[in-house]
Amino acid sequence: MYIAGDMKIKKYKKVVALSGGVGGAKLALGLSHVVDPDDLTVIVNTGDDFTHLGLSISPDIDTLLYTLSDLANPDLGWGRRDETWTFMRALEQLGGDTWFKLGDADIALHIERTRRLTSGETLTAITSSLCIHLGIATKVLPMSNDRVETKVRSDAGWLEFQDYFVRQRCEPPVREIAYRGTEKAALSREVMEALLDDNLRAIILCPSNPWLSVGPMLALPGMREMLKTSSVPVIAVSPLIGGQAVKGPTAKLMRELNLDVSSAEVARYYDGLINGFVVDEVDADTPLPKGMQRAVEPIMMKTLEDKIRVARAVLHFADQLAAN
Amino acid sequence: MYIAGDMKIKKYKKVVALSGGVGGAKLALGLSHVVDPDDLTVIVNTGDDFTHLGLSISPDIDTLLYTLSDLANPDLGWGRRDETWTFMRALEQLGGDTWFKLGDADIALHIERTRRLTSGETLTAITSSLCIHLGIATKVLPMSNDRVETKVRSDAGWLEFQDYFVRQRCEPPVREIAYRGTEKAALSREVMEALLDDNLRAIILCPSNPWLSVGPMLALPGMREMLKTSSVPVIAVSPLIGGQAVKGPTAKLMRELNLDVSSAEVARYYDGLINGFVVDEVDADTPLPKGMQRAVEPIMMKTLEDKIRVARAVLHFADQLAAN
Repeated sequence: MYIAGDMKIKKYKKVVALSGGVGGAKLALGLSHVVDPDDLTVIVNTGDDFTHLGLSISPDIDTLLYTLSDLANPDLGWGRRDETWTFMRALEQLGGDTWFKLGDADIALHIERTRRLTSGETLTAITSSLCIHLGIATKVLPMSNDRVETKVRSDAGWLEFQDYFVRQRCEPPVREIAYRGTEKAALSREVMEALLDDNLRAIILCPSNPWLSVGPMLALPGMREMLKTSSVPVIAVSPLIGGQAVKGPTAKLMRELNLDVSSAEVARYYDGLINGFVVDEVDADTPLPKGMQRAVEPIMMKTLEDKIRVARAVLHFADQLAAN
Repeated sequence: MYIAGDMKIKKYKKVVALSGGVGGAKLALGLSHVVDPDDLTVIVNTGDDFTHLGLSISPDIDTLLYTLSDLANPDLGWGRRDETWTFMRALEQLGGDTWFKLGDADIALHIERTRRLTSGETLTAITSSLCIHLGIATKVLPMSNDRVETKVRSDAGWLEFQDYFVRQRCEPPVREIAYRGTEKAALSREVMEALLDDNLRAIILCPSNPWLSVGPMLALPGMREMLKTSSVPVIAVSPLIGGQAVKGPTAKLMRELNLDVSSAEVARYYDGLINGFVVDEVDADTPLPKGMQRAVEPIMMKTLEDKIRVARAVLHFADQLAAN
């Protein structure tokens, strides 16, 4: 970034964020307020995607769509606001499978996506069209148009992700995680273009679960190489604050995988991939791998103001690293 | 039917009704109140079935299910009571196809049926299971497990049935009707068993549209033969009262097909298949084909009492014919 006369010219404008669900979507929302809409691309984990009741459901994409369109349900932390639940009651009456809660409005998204997938459209094209209908200017890209399935191995064997995550409420201890299908899956053309854009300012790994949400993206052929060789700063924001996850099973999962439940451990997981790591004030003295730069910022994001502040801090950090 | 001592023994107990949607369901509901639940089977037209938004929808079966479980929407005349419409609003927002209205509770039926069809269950088995969940003791049988599609030819060419019936509100003049797929479709085993039951008392053609609702059933291989050769009375109830249809496009359709809009014309359509024909009092002098017996009864069915009264009259008529 430099100043030419009175005109502030940002030479490198484009920002790419990699996100899972709720935690990542918070930072993505913050970024959408501080980056020109045309300049923000969010690449989203689809390892949680599954077929339920015949519907193709993409939980992380949906969270992004609802968050960025201000339709997210603020009480539940998932699904849509102003939701009704007539469908679930009727399904229960008919003896249907009700462990995965689908609101009446939410169903429309799954039905429309499933219909379009069946007709041969790509998940990328469908998501792009949904963004237009929901008034989302940010580009939301599924990590891949190919099916990747995150599975966790517990003492009872391998579990489907949503079985573990929703039906069993993350209760079974996780011994191993696998991203099935990555060997045959490809990053989409749009994802590669976003990561290789000449105008790129920064790549941001949102504070999503590194193993469950970012892991599937890193497992896709070419993704690690893209991050390692990127000419722009790659910044991750820690999903932990003082050894606690803001939301979700990150801390529990790390314990079960015999990992140290700390931002330092997350930084080690990202070693070689990122240039900078953003930790909370309580983790200011987190030891980082050699060469990884640190930024300290209160990273709890409750209000929109928090999200915007953290987004600004992350971009400021990236610009600093780029200038060095 | 005869009396032995004090015990009233009905030797032939079982009743089979052939029904389309709303009009037929009224008489079926009446019959369900005057016949032991175990003894009533309703064979339902599936020529209107179609796939919409990826969901397998069976409008006439649904009407029967909702009517017999007292879930039918009394205001709309279709769909469920106490319905909400959040799904349709959300689908519209997403740019989806909204000409066919699906309520939030109604969607559950279509999703559950579609899921089970996809998993390989027959429509007959699924419908039977849905009846159990909805507390319906009457046996509701799709006419076939094979796909039959009623199509109408208008001046603009052949139309899908729901396109004609719902999207275009029966406005295009109908020149021809076809039941596609009947040559490869079979009556289900359960339908044949019901029609051949040793204990059969009567077969009743409900006051549904003869060409659009009863026609597809008559077009299935073996159905006409079954009716012609049945040893029990086959009774039809006219869908017209004084040349007017109680509901739906029957009269308009008959005009467009250059038919006389009268109960006499309906009787001619059923000639050779039925033994008795029930007409309204205003049609008491309707000329009937040779050998066809007549019963006169007010057949407008508005209240439950009407439906029960007509059901009783039809069965009484059948028993009279059986006794002769």
